Amino acid sequence: MVDYGKLLKHATNQMNKAMDAYAKQFDLTGMQMSIIDFVGQHEQVLQRDIETEFNIQRSTATVALQRMEARGLISRTIAADDARQKMVRLAPKAQALYHTVTAYIAQQQTAMTTAFTPAQRALFVQMLQYFTELNTP
Amino acid sequence: MVDYGKLLKHATNQMNKAMDAYAKQFDLTGMQMSIIDFVGQHEQVLQRDIETEFNIQRSTATVALQRMEARGLISRTIAADDARQKMVRLAPKAQALYHTVTAYIAQQQTAMTTAFTPAQRALFVQMLQYFTELNTP
Repeated sequence: MVDYGKLLKHATNQMNKAMDAYAKQFDLTGMQMSIIDFVGQHEQVLQRDIETEFNIQRSTATVALQRMEARGLISRTIAADDARQKMVRLAPKAQALYHTVTAYIAQQQTAMTTAFTPAQRALFVQMLQYFTELNTP
Repeated sequence: MVDYGKLLKHATNQMNKAMDAYAKQFDLTGMQMSIIDFVGQHEQVLQRDIETEFNIQRSTATVALQRMEARGLISRTIAADDARQKMVRLAPKAQALYHTVTAYIAQQQTAMTTAFTPAQRALFVQMLQYFTELNTP
């Protein structure tokens, strides 16, 4: 029987490896590059949102964000409505990187759009969502 | 635009979280439970194969396997044809766990088989493979 979970895991692993390789030219990890993409899309996010988005521990997020702040890529300020939370924003220095990584990701979306019909892509999304729900308590 | 990479990542994260929650009742991590599944399927595997399968560093694999060996779940012996590699096998104690985790995973495959037609599932596999290839150098 086809193991859908294994196929999904391999697709995600391969995507992460490719992002790591891509990010390396900017002396970043794939995770840091993905954080730049995520923060750039939302303009400002709580550190908690980053932890949820990437399914990482608070300590892992803190280390990654501290390194990015030290390199002048992001700013971290105390959140206005919750002093225990940090608000994360892109620093001006990261704007160019944000556009670069957005283009990198858009290229993959375009490849999927070119290779498959709208109906096929809609089914793909539906099946991914179904599988995700299977694993949601 | 739909971000296929993000959907994939969320599906994989959710699957990993569910496996962690499932494994916890046996006092195992999701990763250790997945290793039991992987080793059980192949009867014996090199540590290197485990590193490739789960896209983890050698040190991460070593720590996980040492803990599993200490709990009597696996054996690690020097590989016959490469003294730098360890051959990993399930210990008798892990056989019941292997059958349990196999049933857990089979349940998800059955859910996918019930919800979608063979043609839909074949397309799903094809699209996952296409996306994986997009990210393969």
